[in-house]
Amino acid sequence: MVILQDVRDAAARLDGIAHRTPVIRSRTLDDIVGAGVHLKAENLQRAGAFKIRGAYNAFSRLSPEQLARGVVAFSSGNHAQAVALSARELGSSAVIVMPEDSPAAKLDAVRGYGAEIVVYNRYTEDREKICRRLAEERGLTLIPPYDHPHVIAGQGTATLELLEDAGELDAIVVPVGGGGLAAGSAVVAKTLYPAIRVIGVEPEAGDDTLRSLAAGERIAVPIPRTIADGQATPIPGELTFSITKRLVDEIVLVSDDELRDAMRFAADRLKLVLEPSGASGLAALLTGRLAPVPARIGVILSGGNVGAARLAELLAR
Amino acid sequence: MVILQDVRDAAARLDGIAHRTPVIRSRTLDDIVGAGVHLKAENLQRAGAFKIRGAYNAFSRLSPEQLARGVVAFSSGNHAQAVALSARELGSSAVIVMPEDSPAAKLDAVRGYGAEIVVYNRYTEDREKICRRLAEERGLTLIPPYDHPHVIAGQGTATLELLEDAGELDAIVVPVGGGGLAAGSAVVAKTLYPAIRVIGVEPEAGDDTLRSLAAGERIAVPIPRTIADGQATPIPGELTFSITKRLVDEIVLVSDDELRDAMRFAADRLKLVLEPSGASGLAALLTGRLAPVPARIGVILSGGNVGAARLAELLAR
Repeated sequence: MVILQDVRDAAARLDGIAHRTPVIRSRTLDDIVGAGVHLKAENLQRAGAFKIRGAYNAFSRLSPEQLARGVVAFSSGNHAQAVALSARELGSSAVIVMPEDSPAAKLDAVRGYGAEIVVYNRYTEDREKICRRLAEERGLTLIPPYDHPHVIAGQGTATLELLEDAGELDAIVVPVGGGGLAAGSAVVAKTLYPAIRVIGVEPEAGDDTLRSLAAGERIAVPIPRTIADGQATPIPGELTFSITKRLVDEIVLVSDDELRDAMRFAADRLKLVLEPSGASGLAALLTGRLAPVPARIGVILSGGNVGAARLAELLAR
Repeated sequence: MVILQDVRDAAARLDGIAHRTPVIRSRTLDDIVGAGVHLKAENLQRAGAFKIRGAYNAFSRLSPEQLARGVVAFSSGNHAQAVALSARELGSSAVIVMPEDSPAAKLDAVRGYGAEIVVYNRYTEDREKICRRLAEERGLTLIPPYDHPHVIAGQGTATLELLEDAGELDAIVVPVGGGGLAAGSAVVAKTLYPAIRVIGVEPEAGDDTLRSLAAGERIAVPIPRTIADGQATPIPGELTFSITKRLVDEIVLVSDDELRDAMRFAADRLKLVLEPSGASGLAALLTGRLAPVPARIGVILSGGNVGAARLAELLAR
């Protein structure tokens, strides 16, 4: 289980490590949505996404012996950078298992934080097996991307800050991938304000949590084909699903085109660079998916790691 | 003259109107520059640029009679939106004189704030003459874009906030167009910290202030051809130049390519959308134009009104 106090403990550990990102308002957005919208700009977070919150919180709770031996993580995305950066902050070391066809910019970013990269062929090799082997051979501890109570508690700190800064809200809108951010956010929001609506957003192609909630059990979908690479998980985590099942009120879906429109809105009006997953909450609002529209809405803009060249492609019509 | 107290008065008037924009840090940027850099994100300001500060401050000091009659302003850019938004906030009205070939997005934005637009042909008509005629015929008051003490005092509030949030700095880096932001910033910075270096940045093609400071008098250059449309002024203002001459320590120049690189850096690493002028201070840092490098540097990221389509063009290689 994860409770509010775990999130508060994580917040204390993250003090001075993670940025307290700003909560941004836009009257244009308020007018379009017909509500007061509070945007938690986690794209301005260190390493460009909320992921440092969970990764660092889990990492920092390892024993001195574990820290000395280092960690291993598998991710082609924001969790990789978050673990690499956390290793540097903690004076530990990290091995990141990444697909050999990862974008050079992502490999460079992870290497830039001083982590060791082990590449694998995503069509012929099993990354979890590689991780287990590395863990056994070299005594490394695995830092999972979402399905761990310390990771979930860390991710919850984004919503804790949002509610501290914005005050009571009627709803929070949170991207759902593996479910770590959604689970941590739901624990915080429902404990502080039991009547709050917790709304998760998934890409249409990756609606595993929507299906799982409908079925009452974890359902796998085919590997999602979506521009929202941060939400391309085929099945909810075990622990995250046990929390979202209890605390998330609804899931709404957004299409890739709607994500692009939301990214455009963010660039045009908010002057923020969002990666597709980072724009999914905004897309839910702009497309009118929330009915009835809550009066005061918090939205986690979860990340901005898209890269200038890819951003240019996605913004072009 | 403009003194610190004028800026403090402006800050009080702007309370609840202008956003207190965040000061953003980036360790990546600090490492590249070899300094502690504090970025004042005025691209996140209302109407997308610092201009609301000066426009609203000047506008709000008009008499009830003047407010009832309304104002006139000429601008194809951020000042137009700032005056239009200020008119709405003050329950007054604004006529904006804009080139007939202005981008539709800019015309729409001004119209969206409820202002009346009068278009002119920039090759055959004199916009100042049109403004004077409108002012006489309809009793409108002109809100100038930079050369007015209330405008300068308003713009200074950005640097006042920056220094309040960041503490003492060794240098501030400020884009220079007509000179309103630079003059207001210099008044604040030099009064609070007399030893601070105030560094202005101009586009290479629009080096009128650099030339004017070298000559000791206002020098006009041909209409600058630069992507930095916010700094495409051919001659410093009279009042602004009398202040920059006294308080600005140096001017550095950046090329259009360097502005594009800085915009790319902002999108890649800071997750911020900057318009070319808004990136000029960052460009000065990234290109190593500041020698010796001050230990603690404040930079005004002055605006982000570039539009998603144009942004995509400028980011593409």
